[in-house]
Order: sequence, then structure tokens, then C-alpha cells
Amino acid sequence: MSQAISALQKARLAYSPKLPDVFKGEFAIEYGETVLPVATHQDEIKMLFPGSYGKPMARIVAGKSNLPTDAITVGVVLSGGPAPGGHNAIAGLFDALKKANPENRLVGFLNGPKGVFTGKYIELTKEVVDSYRNTGGFDMIGSGRDKIESPEQLNGCEKTLKALKAVALVIIGGDDSNTNASILAEHFIARKLPVQVIGLPKTIDGDMRNEFIEASFGFDTASKVYAELVGNICRDSMSGRKYYHFVKLMGRAASHVALEVALQTQPNYAIISEEVQEKKLTLSKVVDEISDMIVRRAEAGKNYGVILIPEGIVEFLSDFGAMLEDIGHALGQYESDFDGMTDVAERSDLLASKLRADNAAVYKGLPFNVQVVLTVRDPHGNLLVSQIESERVIIEAVEQRLDKMKKDGKYNGKFAALAHFFGYEGRCVQPSNFDADYCYALGYTGAQLIRAGLTGYTVSSMNLAAPVSQWQMGGVPVTSMLTLEARKGNLKPVIRKALVELDGAPFEAFQKARETWKTEDAYLFPGPIQYFGPSDVCDAISMTLALESTKR
Amino acid sequence: MSQAISALQKARLAYSPKLPDVFKGEFAIEYGETVLPVATHQDEIKMLFPGSYGKPMARIVAGKSNLPTDAITVGVVLSGGPAPGGHNAIAGLFDALKKANPENRLVGFLNGPKGVFTGKYIELTKEVVDSYRNTGGFDMIGSGRDKIESPEQLNGCEKTLKALKAVALVIIGGDDSNTNASILAEHFIARKLPVQVIGLPKTIDGDMRNEFIEASFGFDTASKVYAELVGNICRDSMSGRKYYHFVKLMGRAASHVALEVALQTQPNYAIISEEVQEKKLTLSKVVDEISDMIVRRAEAGKNYGVILIPEGIVEFLSDFGAMLEDIGHALGQYESDFDGMTDVAERSDLLASKLRADNAAVYKGLPFNVQVVLTVRDPHGNLLVSQIESERVIIEAVEQRLDKMKKDGKYNGKFAALAHFFGYEGRCVQPSNFDADYCYALGYTGAQLIRAGLTGYTVSSMNLAAPVSQWQMGGVPVTSMLTLEARKGNLKPVIRKALVELDGAPFEAFQKARETWKTEDAYLFPGPIQYFGPSDVCDAISMTLALESTKR
Repeated sequence: MSQAISALQKARLAYSPKLPDVFKGEFAIEYGETVLPVATHQDEIKMLFPGSYGKPMARIVAGKSNLPTDAITVGVVLSGGPAPGGHNAIAGLFDALKKANPENRLVGFLNGPKGVFTGKYIELTKEVVDSYRNTGGFDMIGSGRDKIESPEQLNGCEKTLKALKAVALVIIGGDDSNTNASILAEHFIARKLPVQVIGLPKTIDGDMRNEFIEASFGFDTASKVYAELVGNICRDSMSGRKYYHFVKLMGRAASHVALEVALQTQPNYAIISEEVQEKKLTLSKVVDEISDMIVRRAEAGKNYGVILIPEGIVEFLSDFGAMLEDIGHALGQYESDFDGMTDVAERSDLLASKLRADNAAVYKGLPFNVQVVLTVRDPHGNLLVSQIESERVIIEAVEQRLDKMKKDGKYNGKFAALAHFFGYEGRCVQPSNFDADYCYALGYTGAQLIRAGLTGYTVSSMNLAAPVSQWQMGGVPVTSMLTLEARKGNLKPVIRKALVELDGAPFEAFQKARETWKTEDAYLFPGPIQYFGPSDVCDAISMTLALESTKR
Repeated sequence: MSQAISALQKARLAYSPKLPDVFKGEFAIEYGETVLPVATHQDEIKMLFPGSYGKPMARIVAGKSNLPTDAITVGVVLSGGPAPGGHNAIAGLFDALKKANPENRLVGFLNGPKGVFTGKYIELTKEVVDSYRNTGGFDMIGSGRDKIESPEQLNGCEKTLKALKAVALVIIGGDDSNTNASILAEHFIARKLPVQVIGLPKTIDGDMRNEFIEASFGFDTASKVYAELVGNICRDSMSGRKYYHFVKLMGRAASHVALEVALQTQPNYAIISEEVQEKKLTLSKVVDEISDMIVRRAEAGKNYGVILIPEGIVEFLSDFGAMLEDIGHALGQYESDFDGMTDVAERSDLLASKLRADNAAVYKGLPFNVQVVLTVRDPHGNLLVSQIESERVIIEAVEQRLDKMKKDGKYNGKFAALAHFFGYEGRCVQPSNFDADYCYALGYTGAQLIRAGLTGYTVSSMNLAAPVSQWQMGGVPVTSMLTLEARKGNLKPVIRKALVELDGAPFEAFQKARETWKTEDAYLFPGPIQYFGPSDVCDAISMTLALESTKR
């Protein structure tokens, strides 16, 4: 980073992340209860992970240190999509290692897991680390989406780490990457290789979370950026009074981001995928609800509003899901009929003719370009579901419904819709104070787990709704979080994604308020993330974390 | 605003905008040189505006007050799209009026100019104004896009203001709204009605600007929000290393926003409409430049990058412009052939067959949905140019070019593009400290121009690159900014939009650096607007203003 940097970058380089009090004096690792996976899969997990199964919780506690101080070399790798705070996690790891022994080394593997198995890395010196403190992005060492699975890849990692004389690898990633950490840890145990593997919980989607890991890093910052933008859009909507804004937000599986942003901004409507699934809602039913709201608002002279949509919604809508299944079959069964047919309208008509009547009706109600996308499969025979712009699907369906209601004399308003998608804007932001502190603490704790000789652990964090000084840090065996799920036809160990719980405090708070939000303009404007100023502004935690802590 | 408000909203309500020193003691209005419009149109403007032509500059200066203190009633109206700081402009106006005489009244006309001619308003009490200080949005009284032009509208305004016994109307808006202020002022002069009209310069596009008005309000805040997001995208791009992001930014006529954001974030490429027009660049030429850059970056292992595009670009591309003209003719000439033709592919083929070969080639290179949009005209016979997603047009053209280069063995990289449009996200933001201070000063000054009995003036502001204490406020006769332009076939008085000057300091700074930006990742990450903290972070002015001040 030899180039000039912005004024804020400069100011943030000087920020010292707050550390939990326990790290201020002498501390030790204390082992607690043994933690096991969910009962139904214990045998399988035990069989797959004999070396790292049935391990105890590890907690950092004040007291006489029981951690060795021999000089060690540690590797670190970033895995998957970027999340705010990644650089701070590395900085925390670096500082803790250097504090334990100034001779300790940290190397950073380049561009994700493939950097480990192909042996591409850089030395993380003080100079390198210092220039990335409190910055956004994953560009210090890059990231990648490869997994470490095949024998060649496992052996590649082994070779690299042996050559480096590294005692440990820290994998910073989400549920899949932490599962991968567990597999790699087990591999090294089986091979009697003294290399430990430690995971750090990262994902802006907020779905790698449990009682021992109260937050995945990046969620706080990313949600705040999306809430800033949605708040701006809400204010724009009520100022211009002429547009309905349909805002799609990150979250393919879980709707934590949409829920958090809804709680922070109080839009007129927010779809939560978990509720859609639980109640088996159809596209038609969701469109009912939105259209009814629009009609009521029009009657009150309000032809504007804001609606939040989680990225993955279409797959949770029961009629849409049934249609997708039917399409998958039809494209397979009539493959030869589609072959070489280049006219997109013909393809779409042919497909519709092969679907069950109800599915065909859903299909024909979709925007034309979505219909076209659904006539094509990828080389693996999968539909291109991720290319469906769900916000446009919903806008089109609402438009059709309102047109009909207008003809029937039931609606007399104006409907003009705008679509937005906020995703990439939030992944590489300079971390909020919360994420700057949290990631630093995660990295700092990771170093202690390594010093304690642990492997197959993810750094754990509890009491996060309290001030940083009182956070409880430690480690949780990855095996305790594993379950088995079918992936591409095979049962695989995975960390179950934490979904929005409909009886959880965040959803309940949303549920209690949402009827009011439909007709009142109860919008809140959180504004941009503040790094300085009043503590209730710049150190605020997410609503999700705050509300969940009330139920603990 | 009875509802709960966010922590930042609360903190910002307490912010006291900084005022120029001149307002701290006793002050007077001093009249300076007479200012006239550009020489070529002086006679016509004089004829159209006999009562407000040839007036002097007005300046606020320290000294014994020459302003009356009789109790008065003033009206204020917001006109056009929202811009950050509108509420502060009203607050400044309110505070100055109340300070001059606590009996002074301010009423706010609802939902834009039509609120004036239909007589819809609310009393702006201290309670109302206080709850909107330093907030974003135009929702205190709403805005609208109506003009006050027809005799009925002019008479409606007259009636409303007479009934209120208002001595003045303040119109907060852009170039068209300030022109409108001039027309209304002249109307009242002609009718010998003692109602003054004062304009305030608003537009996030930054194109209502001249030597007497160094900034239009909202530009600073909106550009900072877009720069925050573009900076985040730049960091995401270099972290993920797999996407080219094409970011469209506000600015239909002028590219000030794109240029300012480019200076703040240093992306790999930025298109500036004014340069495209000046150099008569074609789409093909722009695509050349972008593709060449992509090839060079690919050779350096970089298959990612960020490209900025101003909203109005397509109309400035010479080949695209020629094509649009040809299409306009063809749709007119062959109207009956298109009538009732519903198949979109057929419409597009027919249209292509009616174009000159070179225009047809440009047309057929467009994304299909853009081709379709261009086969349709609105009820006035105009093409739906504003519906063309220019960022997608450019992506598609670049994609085609790279495919060809790949086949020719000249390119061996991967190209995956993502499109973004940042517009509505920036219009209703809580104003930056600059815009909070600036708008307050504009409103505060507006009150003094009213007290001085002036009409047909826009509030002027100079020395804005200096600390607020040294800003020079005053008024400039609107007639001095007027020229004549053809609008819908008729010559009309308009305020000429300030475009990016290719020999101006901002463009020169961009031009000097841009070759480096193409291949180096010289990205800057300005981060979110800060309201607290170090002054160089939270009080920074725009690069445009800073650079322009070096040339004054």
C-alpha cells in the first residue's frame, strides 16, 4: 500500500481494537464440558472424526498461564467471500503470536485454500500487517473458494506446512470452511502429523452461529451498510412519494441480514425466507400480502414504500419450488426437443406446454427473461436458479395483481417500482468498531488455542452483547457442530446453518411491529457507520445480537 | 416524527451548523457591480425580464445593519428531486427569520410548487423545524416537479401568497426551479405585487454552479455516499479478483458526480460525458479503450476492475446519437408497419432493416431488451432513452469485443461483469457536515435577501473551499445566469448547466492520473461519511471544490 490513502483510512489505521479484559493480565486455557454433535448423528461423526471427536470446550480465563512460549510458525488462509474484519482477524493473530514470543512467525497463504496446497504464501511482517489494520477487504492475502478435499489437496497442504515447519493453520471462513478445517485437522491427526487446524467464524450472512459462537464476523458491518442504504431509500421513498422500492439483500439460505436490516430501518414489508418455508407460503400468497398493503397505502394517499427481499427467496416459495422441480423434469425428459432450438420465445412456449397446469401458470407469470433463463441448464443439468432476479419476479407478479385489482375496481393507486440489490457493497467495508474489535479478539484467541496445542477447534465467543471487556473467548470443537446432510447425493458432514428462528427474539420483535410498519411510515434512518463520536452511535451492536441476548 | 429515531439521528439533531463569521456580529447588505447575462442574449433576456434585469450583486458584509425588522410572513417550497441538506436550508431560513423578529412566520408549501398554486401549506413552527435539523430527505414538506408557468398557476400562486400576506417565496431547487423563481419574480413585479421570490441552488448533479455560486447543495453528500460504495466495490473487486464492476452514477447532463467519485476512489476507468462529446467519441471507441485496458490487466493476471459510467452517457456517444436519430426517423416514417406488431423480435428486425447500415450495426450489437425498448416511442413521439441501461449496453459491447479478441488470439483472460446503479441511495442522506453547514448558510442568507427587499435573486456563496468562518454569502440576480435554449421547439430562458470543463482543475487532475489507474490498483477507500472525529475526515470538502479553488 505505497499509494496515498484516504483521510478515513489514515484515521482508522490508528484505531486500537478493544480487547476483552481477560487478555489484559496473565491468562490460561481452562477446559470445560465435552461437547458432542446432535444425538442423531453422533455415531457417524465419531466414525468420520475419531481423532477430534468428543473434545472439551476451551475457555480463556484469567490466571497463571499454562501456555508454552516456544517459537512457532503459523499459517493463515482466507476462505470464501470477503467479510469486513478479515484483516483484523489476521492482525489479532499476529499480535498475539508476537506477544507470546517475538520469534513467532505468521505466513499468509495466497488467494484461498489453493495457496495452501500449492504452497503460495507471503511472510506477514509487522510492516504488512500494520498497513492493513482496521481496513476492509481480503486483499492482504486474497481469498478463494477451493476446498481441501481430494487426497492430492490434502497431501499438498501437508507438504507445504511441513516445508514451512508450521505447527498450525488458521482457516478463516464460513460453515463449509470450518467443516473443511475439521477434515484437515482429522487428516493430520490420522497421519500423526503435528499440525493443528483452527477455524475462525466468518460470514456476512450471519448463519454460522450457535450458543458458543454468538456472531459470525462481518455480519455487523455488512448489515449496517445495507441498513444505511435502505434507510436512505426509505427517506427517498417518503420524500418523492412516487416509487415502491424492492430491495434484495444478501442471504441465500438464511434471512438474518434481511431481518436485521428490517429491524434497523422498519420498512413497510420484509420477506423472511424461513417464515415462507415454515408456513409453506406460495408466490401468490406473498403477492397477496404485498398487494393488499399497497392497496391500503394507496387509500391513505401513499403510492410509495419499501419492501425487503432476501436473495434466496424464490427457492423457498412452495409453488415456485414445485414449478422448478417440474421444469427440471421437463427439460430432462424433452431434452432433444429443446436441442438446437434458438428462438427464446419458442423455447419458453415449449417448456410451458410440458408443465403441469398450475406450474405453467406460475411460469407464464414470470418476467420474460426469467422464463428464458429457466429453459436452460448448466453442464451438470442444474437450473440456473441463482440467475433469477427474485426482486424482479416479485415486482412483475405484484404489477399483474394490481392491474387485475384495478380492472376489478378494487385499486385506484399508482404503482411504479424500482429494483435494487445490495450485496457487493457490504462485503469489503472497513469494519465497524464491533467487527474491528471482534475480529481482532477472534484472531487473538486463535493464537492461544494454537499455543494450547488444540486442533479441530473453531474460536468461540460468548457474552458479545456486553461491553468488549466482558466478552468470553475460547474454542469449541468443530465436530460438536457437525451433522450429516445430503450434498450432491452423498451424505456429508456439514455445520448446520443457523437459520432465523421464528420463536427467536429478533423475529418476534419484527412480527410484533410489522403490521404497523405496513401503513405507518415508521422508517428509521440509521445512517452511515460511524467510527468516532458518541459510543451509542459508534459502538452499537446489531439488533439481532442485542435481542438474542435478552433471551439467553 | 413521534416515532423512535436511530442513535445517529438523535446525535445529529444536536449538531449546530457552523455559520460564516459575518453572521456572528451585526451585518448589512452591500450592493456591488451590476451583473448581466452572456452578451449574445442580453436583449432577449432584458425584454423577457424588464423588472429584474440589470440588478447588482448583493453581499453580506459586517457592519451596521441596514435591514428592516418588521414582522413578515415568508413561504418556502422544495422543488424537484431531493438532495441532502434541504431540511437544513429551511432551518437556516427559519432561524434567521426568527432572529430578525420573533414574530416572523415561515410556512412550508406541500409537495412542491403545486402546493403554492393550490394553496396547500403547513406552518413551520419551532417544533416542526427542530425535529428535522440535519436530517436527510425532503419529507418535512415534500417536493414535486411541477413548474409555475401557466397563467392559472401564476394566478394561483398570487392568490395563495396574497391570502397569507406573505412578502416572499423561497424556491429551493435546481436550474429549472431557479429559472422558475425568476419568472415568478418578474410576474409579481409586472403585477406590482409586493411579493419577492428568492432561489436556493440545489442539485446533487452539481451542475448549477458558477463564479458566484461555488456549489449546489447535496452534491457533496451524495458524491461521498457514491464514493463510499464505489470504494467498497473496488476493495471487493481486488479481494475477490474475479469481477469487472460497471457502476453507473447519477448525472444525465453533466458528469461532475462521476468525476468527483473517480477522484475520490481512483477506479480503473471512468467515462466523462463531456469528454466523449468534445472528442466526438463513438461507443466503439470507448469499448476499444476499455477492452484494451482489460487485455492489459489480464496479461498482468488481473481479471477484475472497476469502471464508472455517467447516467447520461449513451446520448453523448456520437455513433449512438446518430443511431438514435435514425431510429427516431425510421419509427416515424414506417409507423404503420410497426402498428400492432407485437412480436418483439420481429419489431427489432424490422427496425434494423430500416436503418442505415452503420446505425443498424450499432443497434444489433445492443442487448436484446435495449433493442426492444428502442422500437417503442412515448405518446409524444420520443424514444424511451432514459430507459436504456447504459451500463448494460457497455458491458455487452465490451463482452462482444473481448470474445472477438479471444478468437483472434489477442486476449486470454476471463471476463465476468456486474452492473450497479447508485442513484436513489444518495439523494436523501443525512447531510455531511459540509452540506449541513452550507445549506444552513444558504437558508440563513436567503432570509437576509428577503429582509433587504430583493427579488429574482439566487443565494450566492463564494470562498467555499476556505473554512466556514470565511465563506462569503450574498445574492446574484437570476437574470444574470439566464440564456436562451430551444426546449420543445421554443426558445426558452434557462440557466445554462455547468458542465465538466476539460481544461478545469478537476478534469486535469483526473486526466493526469488515469493512465496509472488503468493498470495499477490505485484504489482509494473513502469509507462512509463521518460526522464526528478528526476534522480532516468529517469536514472534508469535495475534491471538485478543492481543486477548482486552486484555479480561482
